[in-house]
Amino acid sequence: VGDLLECVPNFSEGRDQATIDAIASALGGSDVRLLDIQSDRDHNRSVFTVIGPRRPLVGSIFRAVETAVARIDLRTHEGAHPRMGAVDVVPFIPLLDTPMESAIGASRELGARIAHELDIPIYFYEETAATPDRKNLARVRGKGFEELRDLIATDTDRKPDLGPPRVHESAGATAVGARFALIAYNVYLDTSEVAIAKSIARTVRHSSGGLRYVKAMGFDIPERACVQVSMNLTNHRLTAMHTVFDMIRVAAEGYGVSVTESEVVGMIPAAALMDVARHYLRMHSFTDDQCLELRLLETA
Amino acid sequence: VGDLLECVPNFSEGRDQATIDAIASALGGSDVRLLDIQSDRDHNRSVFTVIGPRRPLVGSIFRAVETAVARIDLRTHEGAHPRMGAVDVVPFIPLLDTPMESAIGASRELGARIAHELDIPIYFYEETAATPDRKNLARVRGKGFEELRDLIATDTDRKPDLGPPRVHESAGATAVGARFALIAYNVYLDTSEVAIAKSIARTVRHSSGGLRYVKAMGFDIPERACVQVSMNLTNHRLTAMHTVFDMIRVAAEGYGVSVTESEVVGMIPAAALMDVARHYLRMHSFTDDQCLELRLLETA
Repeated sequence: VGDLLECVPNFSEGRDQATIDAIASALGGSDVRLLDIQSDRDHNRSVFTVIGPRRPLVGSIFRAVETAVARIDLRTHEGAHPRMGAVDVVPFIPLLDTPMESAIGASRELGARIAHELDIPIYFYEETAATPDRKNLARVRGKGFEELRDLIATDTDRKPDLGPPRVHESAGATAVGARFALIAYNVYLDTSEVAIAKSIARTVRHSSGGLRYVKAMGFDIPERACVQVSMNLTNHRLTAMHTVFDMIRVAAEGYGVSVTESEVVGMIPAAALMDVARHYLRMHSFTDDQCLELRLLETA
Repeated sequence: VGDLLECVPNFSEGRDQATIDAIASALGGSDVRLLDIQSDRDHNRSVFTVIGPRRPLVGSIFRAVETAVARIDLRTHEGAHPRMGAVDVVPFIPLLDTPMESAIGASRELGARIAHELDIPIYFYEETAATPDRKNLARVRGKGFEELRDLIATDTDRKPDLGPPRVHESAGATAVGARFALIAYNVYLDTSEVAIAKSIARTVRHSSGGLRYVKAMGFDIPERACVQVSMNLTNHRLTAMHTVFDMIRVAAEGYGVSVTESEVVGMIPAAALMDVARHYLRMHSFTDDQCLELRLLETA
């Protein structure tokens, strides 16, 4: 059945429960599991979290895409979030020891099916991008559907990777890609001075000289009378959670402040947690396949 | 299909590969996975590691027991390890958030089937024991098959919990039970003085005043020019790995010695590793179901 992957498709419907339910039903399959649906009424957008072995997962996501395309019309869609498609963006993420190449392969397969069977232009982004300027989704999407409709045929920067050189009348265009798992990770500090959280955020984040795969901001959390360094970890294999945690802990010590707690918001891949246990217990020879339950997920 | 369990049946055959293969084949089933077989020629014994949801797992183990009973004759069996049955002992272990009660239930079901369908006397031990003196397997087993054959009908201490009051002619008797996962865990110290490892082993182990669910010994490891505290952790939920590791680390500091490394020998339940990550990252609100891959194992 292939490697284990996560897929997080974003659909441009966050209000009509019948459509959200229809997409969820289309995803069903014995090997594939729908873990979560986050619908946002203001953004008029729903984010699904699905995991499964590569082959059934791609089939399952394609059925959900078909359903979304049949039910969502971008010409009447309103919402705060920029979007260019009824199925706006579909990233695949490798889990366990699945190589990134497998997630890229899944995204190419899905993109080809959407382009050829549904006649929708496809943009490959992130790790599946054909050129560096296609990596960043925001740049591919621009101002969204209405702008893309006008520019797709004439602006070579907006030429799709697959499919027709015009948007689908009602479903627009779709970005498909592969990326590493994203971990939403927050660290709480025992102070009410938000300046300390902001300063530590600058220290740890890539954009201001810190760790390569960390995005960070500092926030005041008045209801808990403390402050928070709020982060996205974009490649936990190369910038590990424990590296980030210890860097913040040591930086906070410089202000005479302690870390009271940290939290993962949403889901996290098992490998990120294994790496933390391996590090702090100094288990240099520990391999993920020593974990009993993960062995159940090995695919044939 | 029920809760996720591990089962570690011990069969009295470690030499005849055809019998070991036949038992392995009998275990097959789509929901059940055979992870490991450890065969020992001197002990003439094989230990299988199997995981799966409760109902198919019990069915699968019963088929393996039938096969072993048909092929192993204790009257001609020789081996260094004490044994009382062709199928000597069958423990069930709860995985993830499966309650111990479920493992106890599985052991009762399997015991009843072996007693009634195969006419073999059954002893329930550990968490399934009906009385405190039946908890300890060594006490139940005594000197094994030949002794039990003579005493089973007359010694009330040896009366089986289920099945006939005589051993099965060729297959003897079987102990079935439920227990917590056992973690074989070693910590290496940066010294060649074995007295330090032995002293720390005494500090951490239950029998000499230490942690309740730790068994420990100190060993010299000349090939690595260091010493080792070698442990069995018998309930990682109540005596956590990080508690043990930090206690050894601090005790070693008292001798001016550091911990260079630790290791898990064999398999470990995911929950034990989650607890370690949760502790060191201070993730007080983290729940195991935030781990993506483990959600795939949730059973209906």
